[in-house]
Amino acid sequence: MRLAREFGVQLITENEINTIRELTGEVHYLIRRGGFFYAHRDLVPILSRQRSGLKWALYDGRGPSADLHIGHLVPWMLSKWFVDKFNVDYFFELTDDEKFLVKEGGYTLEQTNKYAYENALDLIALGFTPDKLHIIIDSEDIKYLYKIAVRVGKKLTLSTVKHTFGFTDSTNVGAAFFPTLEISVAFLPTELYGEQVPVLIPTAIDQDPYFRLARDIADELGYPPKPSTIYSKFIPGLTGEDKMSASNPDSAIYVTDSERDVRRKIMNALTGGQPTVELQRKYGGDPDNCVVYKYHLLFQDSDEKVRDIYENCRAGKLLCGECKIMLFERIREFMKEHNERRERAKDAIQQYRISVKFR
Amino acid sequence: MRLAREFGVQLITENEINTIRELTGEVHYLIRRGGFFYAHRDLVPILSRQRSGLKWALYDGRGPSADLHIGHLVPWMLSKWFVDKFNVDYFFELTDDEKFLVKEGGYTLEQTNKYAYENALDLIALGFTPDKLHIIIDSEDIKYLYKIAVRVGKKLTLSTVKHTFGFTDSTNVGAAFFPTLEISVAFLPTELYGEQVPVLIPTAIDQDPYFRLARDIADELGYPPKPSTIYSKFIPGLTGEDKMSASNPDSAIYVTDSERDVRRKIMNALTGGQPTVELQRKYGGDPDNCVVYKYHLLFQDSDEKVRDIYENCRAGKLLCGECKIMLFERIREFMKEHNERRERAKDAIQQYRISVKFR
Repeated sequence: MRLAREFGVQLITENEINTIRELTGEVHYLIRRGGFFYAHRDLVPILSRQRSGLKWALYDGRGPSADLHIGHLVPWMLSKWFVDKFNVDYFFELTDDEKFLVKEGGYTLEQTNKYAYENALDLIALGFTPDKLHIIIDSEDIKYLYKIAVRVGKKLTLSTVKHTFGFTDSTNVGAAFFPTLEISVAFLPTELYGEQVPVLIPTAIDQDPYFRLARDIADELGYPPKPSTIYSKFIPGLTGEDKMSASNPDSAIYVTDSERDVRRKIMNALTGGQPTVELQRKYGGDPDNCVVYKYHLLFQDSDEKVRDIYENCRAGKLLCGECKIMLFERIREFMKEHNERRERAKDAIQQYRISVKFR
Repeated sequence: MRLAREFGVQLITENEINTIRELTGEVHYLIRRGGFFYAHRDLVPILSRQRSGLKWALYDGRGPSADLHIGHLVPWMLSKWFVDKFNVDYFFELTDDEKFLVKEGGYTLEQTNKYAYENALDLIALGFTPDKLHIIIDSEDIKYLYKIAVRVGKKLTLSTVKHTFGFTDSTNVGAAFFPTLEISVAFLPTELYGEQVPVLIPTAIDQDPYFRLARDIADELGYPPKPSTIYSKFIPGLTGEDKMSASNPDSAIYVTDSERDVRRKIMNALTGGQPTVELQRKYGGDPDNCVVYKYHLLFQDSDEKVRDIYENCRAGKLLCGECKIMLFERIREFMKEHNERRERAKDAIQQYRISVKFR
């Protein structure tokens, strides 16, 4: 795998999966099925800490925006499972500052801050409890990060951030400084608890440069052990792109989409099916190259149902239209529940703020 | 005057001095005598606001360090007079972050933070009351600055901060970001009061680049009117250097010096006197080129005494030894009072923190 080679990460193998099963009694389908979380760096030391009863924490984040799609929720669903099974704290950084800083013109800081609150509702709606999920909104909770960021910032030259993030002399100095904050959260649990609390960071590979820098300077800053990471794939666009795309609204299902929109988008999705019903019946479809099947893998927790879909597709028993209806019904159910819980989260959001829990 | 020409500032003239007298009934000797505060940029609009009963605020700051000398107290003495006479708020930034960031190796952030508290005591000891003096310690009070700093940071490219402050690609990204914070305090009163509150910044010319940048971007950020500045000269070293120097401890009187040290330093100071008593009696001294006389100008509030010193020196009636003893006695008295008030400030310091006054 190219990414694994280039970035020095390891694929998740049966070894790690077995260790997780041993520790928790089961393995979440997003890891087990191999399709979504696929690689890691130093997952093993984290699992060893768990076995030894030593503290660690989960750390994830998001650049808040108005266009949250259901694919964004998938890694957070796994985080929920980690929190429940491993009984760990989950630190979540909403980078309203960066979203403002990197966008030429466009958003005001007030807007990106508003999106942070909106996105927080979607996160909370996945079922986290306030004792475990600690939300950091950069522009408001900077006091938790700045002292760490200053020490991180002293270790990173302009040259380093330019090379690592592709910055140039035309980059604004706010954007150039921002990486120190994303890095600082990796060290925050250690500061808050006054003991070594390494983090496991579920992330896509595009955020890896932040965490490689974090690892580079962890020792010097007195933050061993280094942060660990597990990597998720990008979720493919419904219309066939490698990645859901904000510029093509039909490539993704937004959490705010109407049932009608969701249905249309799914029914228009690119599949691995044959061009005609007759050919599908005769030769079967190709679920391994089908966006609709990939969505089933992400949102259907029943292994049996997923297996049936796969086999019936291959055997030509399941037509794409039927398969899409099944997906639509699953997503509709998922979104209905999600939006109900999201509504309830509105009253509770303050309880999840890091500022109400740590002085 | 070279600095005035190069930086586009104006000399303080009888016009400004007369306006101050008109508004307050008097003029502080540090402005009146012309020797210390000598130039300004947009002092007149600030005085006009005062006349119209419109709000403005004073803003000063310091990179905290262990080696505070009595010369550092001089501009703060004028600030005290401004606060009293104009009834304005005084925002004071202690940049423990920057002091840590720009020092290769050397200080830890804990050390520079400790110096911030130490230096705050010296500031408070000058007689400020907590309703007027608002102390910002960057590493602890970052939440007051960061939202402004992000907007400032978006306006400043790496190229701009490199050119303005002489940064290179080897500069660390924390130090590169820091100017946004020094600039942000200039806009803080406007944010805190929710109305236009421009600042007047007493400063030495070396800090001017920060405030020129602040002026450049004030309009775009919606912070009219632009910050104003008044400039003080560097205080000459006792041993004849242009500026007191940390590398020559005998060039400055530190607030922590013993009476014995103070006496020795003053008695060893370079004067404008003649080489021998006889020549001094015959030709008189040159107070205009005498460090000891400059110190009299800074620390002696009686115009009459200062005039006597000047004239008796010129006339050869006053010998350098006698003049130094007079200065020593004045400084001893000043430091005795200062240290008593500094001791009392220890119990009160928290009341001056911005965080206890603004939510």
